[in-house]
Amino acid sequence: MTIIGPRLPRDSQVRVMEDTVAQAEKHFGQFCSLLAAYARKTARLRDKADLLVRRLLDCADTEQPEMRAALRTLAEDLAKVQDYRQAEVERLEMKVINPLKLYGAQTKQTRAEIKKFKCVRNNEIKQLEKLEKLRQKSPSDRQTIAESSVQRATVDASCTTQQLQETIDTFQQQKLKDLQKIFSDFVTIELVFHAKAVEVYSSAFQTLESYDLERDLQDFRAKMHGVYGCYDARPLTTTTTSPGVPWSLAQSAQSTIRSQTKAAAGDEDSAEEGPAPDLGGRGPINNE
Amino acid sequence: MTIIGPRLPRDSQVRVMEDTVAQAEKHFGQFCSLLAAYARKTARLRDKADLLVRRLLDCADTEQPEMRAALRTLAEDLAKVQDYRQAEVERLEMKVINPLKLYGAQTKQTRAEIKKFKCVRNNEIKQLEKLEKLRQKSPSDRQTIAESSVQRATVDASCTTQQLQETIDTFQQQKLKDLQKIFSDFVTIELVFHAKAVEVYSSAFQTLESYDLERDLQDFRAKMHGVYGCYDARPLTTTTTSPGVPWSLAQSAQSTIRSQTKAAAGDEDSAEEGPAPDLGGRGPINNE
Repeated sequence: MTIIGPRLPRDSQVRVMEDTVAQAEKHFGQFCSLLAAYARKTARLRDKADLLVRRLLDCADTEQPEMRAALRTLAEDLAKVQDYRQAEVERLEMKVINPLKLYGAQTKQTRAEIKKFKCVRNNEIKQLEKLEKLRQKSPSDRQTIAESSVQRATVDASCTTQQLQETIDTFQQQKLKDLQKIFSDFVTIELVFHAKAVEVYSSAFQTLESYDLERDLQDFRAKMHGVYGCYDARPLTTTTTSPGVPWSLAQSAQSTIRSQTKAAAGDEDSAEEGPAPDLGGRGPINNE
Repeated sequence: MTIIGPRLPRDSQVRVMEDTVAQAEKHFGQFCSLLAAYARKTARLRDKADLLVRRLLDCADTEQPEMRAALRTLAEDLAKVQDYRQAEVERLEMKVINPLKLYGAQTKQTRAEIKKFKCVRNNEIKQLEKLEKLRQKSPSDRQTIAESSVQRATVDASCTTQQLQETIDTFQQQKLKDLQKIFSDFVTIELVFHAKAVEVYSSAFQTLESYDLERDLQDFRAKMHGVYGCYDARPLTTTTTSPGVPWSLAQSAQSTIRSQTKAAAGDEDSAEEGPAPDLGGRGPINNE
């Protein structure tokens, strides 16, 4: 059907529009699902780090005073980083993933406009087919009919083209703005998180660097000396001051010395008596 | 059996040692599996970001020149961050997880020493039991036997205690050093990664901020005008210069104009002709 020939540029226009919208829909859809996955993986990393915080506190409670303080500070710092990571996840949801989700509505609207344009175009084709039939019936009027049909198509097309141009222009402008906005927000969110992490980890590094091993060892040796001391001292004491004392009495005296040693050991008891009550919520660690 | 009474402090010693080793084994084991999980989650986050890099390049290839350049730079920056993340994962493996794994060997050795001590102790108990029997057989020698057994035990114990003290002291010292070293390394690795990420994202932010939307829109409108223009121009040309030209010829002329328009559009063709060859490896994006 030769009369549809000059319509080809309009096919091209529709194709360019459809491609533009389809590409945008595809890419924004992929970005949406990928960034949602990225946020989920970030949340899982946060969960693992949260477990590490608990274990650090757990370990701190069984350690020498200096190490206990260092591990507690490290746990607090690590928890802070996870709070920032949580904020990162929430911001990604709000400022990156949700806008990408909403973008679907925008492409739908543009699709509807393209569809409307296609209907208009199909009506024009039908009208041209009518003119073609008319032309075949009265070949003498051929030139007049052809010219009038072309002129009519030109007027219709320029009107529709105007609308199309506006639609695609608005769509493209919005798309470019959205791309810039969404990825600027993504980069800003990441930047803020990493900057906070640097701040917190710098402080954590200082804490660990200033850890006083010697002081802890002295403390440990003093406590161990208490435990060993009571043993070393006992046989001498019992044999010299009361050689005939029954074993049960010697044992009782020994218990008293051990009680004193335990009291002197103070917090260290928690190592033997189980975790401190404030640990709480010991979840399974292998729940991969 | 009363003669075992005075051995209680040694039970306490063993318990303290066993607790110290068991606590260390438990905590180091937990740290090891948690930090391995942390490294794995980090690697998965890197994988997602790597996919995002591909999609950004993919999208860039279908975009206007300014956006294309911006997205490519962003993709490069994001890829850089993933390289640093990869280095983070490798360093965690090497400097944190592997030492924690090796720590198991250390606790085993200490356990073996405790076991050895227990054997020595059991032998002493047996000897004391023999003495007890001897004492029951000849009650008159009770005092002599008791004193000699206590003295013997004292000598044995002070020797074993010395060894025990050294073992536990070495173990504790090494454990505290290891704790400090491992967590210092962890914090340093994290610190370096986050600092690098801040550097790269700062640059990425600048890139996106300096994106020139107007220039892209002008470029887009110029190209769209080419597509629309060939339609607007055609009917007038064909109707005025060759009113009687067959439709098929008009169509042919139109094809030439379209070819020129396509050539002028340049790279933009890739939008219609599929992805550029350098994209490669489009993996499934939903492989959670």
